[in-house]
Amino acid sequence: MEILERRDVNAVAYLNLNAPDRLNALSDEMLAALQSTLDGLKEDRSVRAVVLSGSGKAFCAGHDLKQMTAGRQAEDGGKAYFKDLFDRCAQMMMTVQSLPQPVIARVHGIATAAGCQLVATCDMAVAAEGTRFGVNGVNIGLFCSTPMVALTRNVHRKQAFEMLTTGRFLNADEARDIGLVNHVVPADQLDAKATELAETVAAKLGAAVRVGKEAFYNQITMNTSDAYAYTGDVMVENMLYRDTEEGISAFLEKRDPDWSQ
Amino acid sequence: MEILERRDVNAVAYLNLNAPDRLNALSDEMLAALQSTLDGLKEDRSVRAVVLSGSGKAFCAGHDLKQMTAGRQAEDGGKAYFKDLFDRCAQMMMTVQSLPQPVIARVHGIATAAGCQLVATCDMAVAAEGTRFGVNGVNIGLFCSTPMVALTRNVHRKQAFEMLTTGRFLNADEARDIGLVNHVVPADQLDAKATELAETVAAKLGAAVRVGKEAFYNQITMNTSDAYAYTGDVMVENMLYRDTEEGISAFLEKRDPDWSQ
Amino acid sequence: MEILERRDVNAVAYLNLNAPDRLNALSDEMLAALQSTLDGLKEDRSVRAVVLSGSGKAFCAGHDLKQMTAGRQAEDGGKAYFKDLFDRCAQMMMTVQSLPQPVIARVHGIATAAGCQLVATCDMAVAAEGTRFGVNGVNIGLFCSTPMVALTRNVHRKQAFEMLTTGRFLNADEARDIGLVNHVVPADQLDAKATELAETVAAKLGAAVRVGKEAFYNQITMNTSDAYAYTGDVMVENMLYRDTEEGISAFLEKRDPDWSQ
Repeated sequence: MEILERRDVNAVAYLNLNAPDRLNALSDEMLAALQSTLDGLKEDRSVRAVVLSGSGKAFCAGHDLKQMTAGRQAEDGGKAYFKDLFDRCAQMMMTVQSLPQPVIARVHGIATAAGCQLVATCDMAVAAEGTRFGVNGVNIGLFCSTPMVALTRNVHRKQAFEMLTTGRFLNADEARDIGLVNHVVPADQLDAKATELAETVAAKLGAAVRVGKEAFYNQITMNTSDAYAYTGDVMVENMLYRDTEEGISAFLEKRDPDWSQ
Repeated sequence: MEILERRDVNAVAYLNLNAPDRLNALSDEMLAALQSTLDGLKEDRSVRAVVLSGSGKAFCAGHDLKQMTAGRQAEDGGKAYFKDLFDRCAQMMMTVQSLPQPVIARVHGIATAAGCQLVATCDMAVAAEGTRFGVNGVNIGLFCSTPMVALTRNVHRKQAFEMLTTGRFLNADEARDIGLVNHVVPADQLDAKATELAETVAAKLGAAVRVGKEAFYNQITMNTSDAYAYTGDVMVENMLYRDTEEGISAFLEKRDPDWSQ
Repeated sequence: MEILERRDVNAVAYLNLNAPDRLNALSDEMLAALQSTLDGLKEDRSVRAVVLSGSGKAFCAGHDLKQMTAGRQAEDGGKAYFKDLFDRCAQMMMTVQSLPQPVIARVHGIATAAGCQLVATCDMAVAAEGTRFGVNGVNIGLFCSTPMVALTRNVHRKQAFEMLTTGRFLNADEARDIGLVNHVVPADQLDAKATELAETVAAKLGAAVRVGKEAFYNQITMNTSDAYAYTGDVMVENMLYRDTEEGISAFLEKRDPDWSQ
């Protein structure tokens, strides 16, 4: 049994966190498997979208507390290990956003702490009715400081602050209403919705989606003037793609594009 | 027939995109007309609010793809033309926000690509029921990178990302719920709602609205401490206006202000 | 009668603006009382959450316009006084966010201008049904430039712009939907809800909440990479707290933590 399963269908890579007995915790092994697999996808032009899911009862319950507790045995009480762990976790999260392909979280059960961070980090997210979302580390005395980075870049301040300091869980509808997930569907339609979203993206011109996703995160923190200068250049390059010329011609001629991808 | 109609009523300038056969596309001519008209409004103290609408079936369908395709005939395949085009478009968008008067988009039919960018760029927006909003360039292989700048400064990340990479259209209620428009009304009340909003703004002290709008966009990207230092100075100046002294006195004396504007 | 009442119960400090005849305006005296009390709370480890409320018909109606008008008698027409006033007000607002303890606004009646700014500034807010929120200085010719700083860091742009330039009031449900308050309850449940929220926070490990709140505002304007580097260090330190070790152990052993706080 692999800790991270991968299945490719119709230009979509389905990655499945597969440590259900640990609620798919982001253990050292899980982080390594995710990092390695995401790194491998970077140059894989056969994949144009990624779906991330979890086996068993939960999408992901965050860090592996047993493993972290074991790390305390080191001479420094775990300090070096924790530092490295949070670095590796942040690196994996940032790799999701720097990946050329859009990544869709397919969320069920619970998504807590770094698991909620993973949902917030993915480019899009769909959730089953009944899913619960929390950054509830505060309940055990460990404030979700790194998950907060992703959460506060998805939702408004007061909503994030309450989740972080009270440990309150959101239900799926609340998560959608505040911007943490895109869609909520009945559990038996969750796979279909994730696939629909992924295949919709995968059917677009891959090069356009790639430059678009990269530009999305690059421009979002720029001031407006810089953002326009930068994205203007991105659009000029995009206009000069052979496939984009074909896409526009096909649109004007009311026919389907004949793309080389 | 002018490509951009202007009609002034009660201190409100009504600008109407008037190329209905091209779904009011932001052609070279349309951009030039908008830039020129907006530039003329900057110093026009008789106008205290602006409403922007479109003739025919759509508010605005974005760039003029036929004209852009014609631009490919240049020796450089259109590169210089496209660069200049996106520069001019961004310039016009930034002029909307730097205009002293609030600008209200009155949106019906569809607002797509740079047309959706225009809605996102306006200070406020009202939409008719049934209006559809999209940044759907990805459907023809041209990612809406410049519209993204305005969109991501209006709505949360996941909602913007989905629109940009799937080409999905939002209906008017969805657009309101995520923050892209202020109000949705039946089509036959759209003009009344836009006028109500514009005349409400126009009835305020023009000088206060002018410094306020300028400060709005200036402070929004500052850190909190800098933003307070800056807006504190703005408020001091505002307090010293003769008309503001009169406005406050009138309020304390429970009478209408006698403003010089 | 004190202008700012304080009552401590169960590790929660209840601060009550108590100038009901002036709608709890942020007069020189009120600002001084708030600043002094907040400064005193900074080092007070017996308090782990703060609730801020107002006596009488309103939570807070903003600056004290009579006092400001009196300030015009100075030789400079009030310029130096106004500058100092807005500086003191901004200082008090920033002290709310730099306070180690979460601050919850308990809002009823109206919260206008700097009173609405105070709601936006608090870490969380609960409102009674029927409460109205406005940044309506524009109605008297004084644009709410400093309240805008807090408001635009809570809600989306178009919603903030409309409130600021039209003076329109939001009802409590609208305020919740756009992110300005966390919860809306019937008036007779307002105290219970504010207390519930405060006592929930106060029951957490105080040290974790303190570092978490500080990190919340520090990281929110950083780019993602810097934010992760910073919050990673915060989490390492948090992991090394004796009480956090106990909290995690207790969780893994399915028992209540035995915290030293």
